[in-house]
Amino acid sequence: MQKKTTQFKALLQARDLQFLMEAHDGLSARIVEEAGFKGIWGSGLAIAASLGVRDNNEASWSQVLDVVEFMSDASSIPIMLDGDTGYGNFNNVRRLVRKLEQRGVGAVCIEDKLFPKNNSLLDNARQPLEAIDVFVGKIKAAKDSQQDEDFCVVARIEAFIAKWGLGEALKRAEAYQRAGADALLIHSKLSTADEILAFMKEWGDTCPVVVVPTKYYTTPTSVFREAGIRLVIWANHLLRSSVAAMQKTAATIHSQQSLLEVEKDIVPVQEIFRLQNVEELKQAEDRYLPPARRPDIVE
Amino acid sequence: MQKKTTQFKALLQARDLQFLMEAHDGLSARIVEEAGFKGIWGSGLAIAASLGVRDNNEASWSQVLDVVEFMSDASSIPIMLDGDTGYGNFNNVRRLVRKLEQRGVGAVCIEDKLFPKNNSLLDNARQPLEAIDVFVGKIKAAKDSQQDEDFCVVARIEAFIAKWGLGEALKRAEAYQRAGADALLIHSKLSTADEILAFMKEWGDTCPVVVVPTKYYTTPTSVFREAGIRLVIWANHLLRSSVAAMQKTAATIHSQQSLLEVEKDIVPVQEIFRLQNVEELKQAEDRYLPPARRPDIVE
Amino acid sequence: MQKKTTQFKALLQARDLQFLMEAHDGLSARIVEEAGFKGIWGSGLAIAASLGVRDNNEASWSQVLDVVEFMSDASSIPIMLDGDTGYGNFNNVRRLVRKLEQRGVGAVCIEDKLFPKNNSLLDNARQPLEAIDVFVGKIKAAKDSQQDEDFCVVARIEAFIAKWGLGEALKRAEAYQRAGADALLIHSKLSTADEILAFMKEWGDTCPVVVVPTKYYTTPTSVFREAGIRLVIWANHLLRSSVAAMQKTAATIHSQQSLLEVEKDIVPVQEIFRLQNVEELKQAEDRYLPPARRPDIVE
Amino acid sequence: MQKKTTQFKALLQARDLQFLMEAHDGLSARIVEEAGFKGIWGSGLAIAASLGVRDNNEASWSQVLDVVEFMSDASSIPIMLDGDTGYGNFNNVRRLVRKLEQRGVGAVCIEDKLFPKNNSLLDNARQPLEAIDVFVGKIKAAKDSQQDEDFCVVARIEAFIAKWGLGEALKRAEAYQRAGADALLIHSKLSTADEILAFMKEWGDTCPVVVVPTKYYTTPTSVFREAGIRLVIWANHLLRSSVAAMQKTAATIHSQQSLLEVEKDIVPVQEIFRLQNVEELKQAEDRYLPPARRPDIVE
Repeated sequence: MQKKTTQFKALLQARDLQFLMEAHDGLSARIVEEAGFKGIWGSGLAIAASLGVRDNNEASWSQVLDVVEFMSDASSIPIMLDGDTGYGNFNNVRRLVRKLEQRGVGAVCIEDKLFPKNNSLLDNARQPLEAIDVFVGKIKAAKDSQQDEDFCVVARIEAFIAKWGLGEALKRAEAYQRAGADALLIHSKLSTADEILAFMKEWGDTCPVVVVPTKYYTTPTSVFREAGIRLVIWANHLLRSSVAAMQKTAATIHSQQSLLEVEKDIVPVQEIFRLQNVEELKQAEDRYLPPARRPDIVE
Repeated sequence: MQKKTTQFKALLQARDLQFLMEAHDGLSARIVEEAGFKGIWGSGLAIAASLGVRDNNEASWSQVLDVVEFMSDASSIPIMLDGDTGYGNFNNVRRLVRKLEQRGVGAVCIEDKLFPKNNSLLDNARQPLEAIDVFVGKIKAAKDSQQDEDFCVVARIEAFIAKWGLGEALKRAEAYQRAGADALLIHSKLSTADEILAFMKEWGDTCPVVVVPTKYYTTPTSVFREAGIRLVIWANHLLRSSVAAMQKTAATIHSQQSLLEVEKDIVPVQEIFRLQNVEELKQAEDRYLPPARRPDIVE
Repeated sequence: MQKKTTQFKALLQARDLQFLMEAHDGLSARIVEEAGFKGIWGSGLAIAASLGVRDNNEASWSQVLDVVEFMSDASSIPIMLDGDTGYGNFNNVRRLVRKLEQRGVGAVCIEDKLFPKNNSLLDNARQPLEAIDVFVGKIKAAKDSQQDEDFCVVARIEAFIAKWGLGEALKRAEAYQRAGADALLIHSKLSTADEILAFMKEWGDTCPVVVVPTKYYTTPTSVFREAGIRLVIWANHLLRSSVAAMQKTAATIHSQQSLLEVEKDIVPVQEIFRLQNVEELKQAEDRYLPPARRPDIVE
Repeated sequence: MQKKTTQFKALLQARDLQFLMEAHDGLSARIVEEAGFKGIWGSGLAIAASLGVRDNNEASWSQVLDVVEFMSDASSIPIMLDGDTGYGNFNNVRRLVRKLEQRGVGAVCIEDKLFPKNNSLLDNARQPLEAIDVFVGKIKAAKDSQQDEDFCVVARIEAFIAKWGLGEALKRAEAYQRAGADALLIHSKLSTADEILAFMKEWGDTCPVVVVPTKYYTTPTSVFREAGIRLVIWANHLLRSSVAAMQKTAATIHSQQSLLEVEKDIVPVQEIFRLQNVEELKQAEDRYLPPARRPDIVE
């Protein structure tokens, strides 16, 4: 099987539009892979939310790393981790890249906000961003510290989010590309793709562009394709669907004091076992355990 | 607010039937609480599955502890952790109890299987169980090492699961109660409650009994109430409902290459923010950040 | 036994000069306690160095927390953790305080530098410090989030280290005291205590003062006592003595290809067992293991 | 630089006697390397002791993994981790091997005791060992799960420790070699090398043999060389020398209430900085930080 870094690089370089689907733990990572996606978005928001904390660097970077390690172990397609600001300065970014490579993560995305971060979809006033030369240093440090030449560093531009406008977005895009970024993620929280399309109009096709249409989800995907975008991230929808389902299930069981009504809407326990690959362990027990220790034989 | 240990003890001692709902991460723990439940089952199966590993002690006990700490931080109702076999011998159990108390976990359930464990719902032949005197030592060690007098240790009897029958179940029940168990969890994987009811018929009401009707879910709850059972665990249903929802959502987004169809079935991003208690942070920013650093003011 | 927070508060309020000794892992924490000290300094430098990383927040705050948890478990005297800048903003400080309380840590010291930090003893030019109102917010947030009223928050003033002088140091001292700091740590890296004594001359005895004479170690301790200082931290000397010993031992064994020469300079294995409290486990085995499982009986 | 696994394999295959020196954290690992050793013994006893816990699997396997990751990051020579019993059954061993490979650990040693383990140097009666066929399954599982062909699995034979004698030791040696072990560690706690030499006399040179002369340290190294042993482990001497030094330093500082007397016996702070490789960070700051953010320039 191809290395995950190589798989991810191929996604960025593909001629047709590609997609990443959000996951936030080992289980959702496996579900993304089984659905046919070729890559996973290790969403900072979704990981934080599933841990029960806020998307403000309340979980430490090593706690996020622990999550993404389980995700990577549970899947054979590449993960791009939403690495926030890199959790500090260029030196923290270097350490992060080495740790992600060890865990088999395919790529990291870092953003030009300040640590600790606020989630980009929260209502804010115009915000300061990281100085361009400082963020350029982070990108260079990331690229210089990777040991696998295919590991990708994606630079996320928060100029629209922080209300600095198109000029700032383009200035940063150029600087980040020059610094070695393998792709640019241009983020917007308008309900239309206007900012994104304005950016694409000015931006030559010299570095792949990634978008996250959480807020402008009504924009047809063909629009992204025509605009020359390379990668679309469906950023938090497995988490959001799981919340809807869990809230409904919890409410029903609580009011009914019974499982009867929910059984039809949930997967059987056997499906959980299948997702855990219990079958592989059974076969391994045949191979590595003497009969007297095998749970299907002992009497 | 009452200590979580005290809350849990009160559940065990309540005259009417009580319920625990499964959670497997901070987010699902908060959902359980919001649904009105008074306690959480920290399911070993669900935690393992959400991490992407098998329910065979593939995750270390400290990795499970990290999960349950996030769960405890995210909720104000007590958690009973499914502590498997205690992850080793009596000494590992002692360490576990101290660590759970520190994290604000209300109770632990330990089972009389051998380490590393197999999930009880898998098909097995008749299995060896931990020797009674060894397991009694674990219970005593757990009770002796708790510092909060309300912390509860529940002894899970796997005699029916391992195909040893009612006599063995009763013998173990008596020994575990004498050793100091605060309650007994009697497990069965029949599709009827026959084994459970046979046990309850013989067992006097001298120690609270807990059941897990995952397999005999068609048994009306009134039957448990009449049999004198004190606590019912809905053991893995939030996980199973989240899998159903995530599989469907992932499939739809993959085939549609669009979010349009799924938006109606998932919660809005704002609901995720609400579950993360973003509002509390905003208020804290007003209190602790000078205006020039507040994300809603900076210009 | 008195709570560790209460023990630490008593140290700060004692009339006579008190001392903390550095430790960096569970073993050194136990050695500090056995030597007779009443408190432990959980040195950021020493913890980082023993992990093999730099004192620049290369280890995440949760990795530091894991270390300090082992230290706290291994000792019954209070630890004051060197909490750097609090590892982010006021919100990260709140989380840290709650986590330290859970682990039984007695106090935390936070400093008014910027994240990620540089070690104070490195050669630097004049440095920016955290804005006073921002750091005041951190102190207030720390104090508001503690649940144990005796938990202490010590504010470390880096004005001398960053070359801002006495006026700045005093201005910060007043602000931090007003914000609720339980003590002030005034740091200096001169080879004399001049800066410290100048500060003490101006500073009334309204809030306990802590010093770290790593660089001005030739100053007699009586000088600190007379100046009204309350607490002296011996900040990194166990680590530095262990390095000297380990380098010598490694060199000898490498050149001799034999243990003969080093045996006289090292403690016997039995002393390691004693420090690990192996005796307690033996007694517990007598209590909790049936004879057929006890390692001193099985045949 | 050669991969660490390859370096370790070369040590095992070298014609002349080789040595591993114990380390227990990142700092001691670096000291071992600087002393000229070609490999590191990640001692279970020393790691447990430095954490402040007992050598009875009180630390979880993932907590040990965290330690060995810091050790591996801090050194460029291979580490052989003392992996106890593999922390469970064959399946836990498989997971361990994959995790060690990710962290750049060169080899693992697993022993044929039961989980949770007792330290081999404690006084015990004759003990049960893991059944040969079960342990053979662990070795096979370890070898089958490694992805780097040079990763080594060393099988540790506790037959002498558990008082089963030479016959049992030889029987196990043959079985473990056939199962694919890259080397055999034959352990003894006699104060002479008699058991070891008896073993070597019977054992053909078909699989490299490793010894740990902690107890029979008076045996001249030439004896091991002549007996055909390939690798000697100096198993816990850095830890033991650090304890001697720290106890002395703590006692002196406590009684003197001053640092004066200890300064001559400890390394300077600058030496700690050197061991942390502070210089590399300074150079990186020149490369990646704009002048206005560099600590040696900011005014």
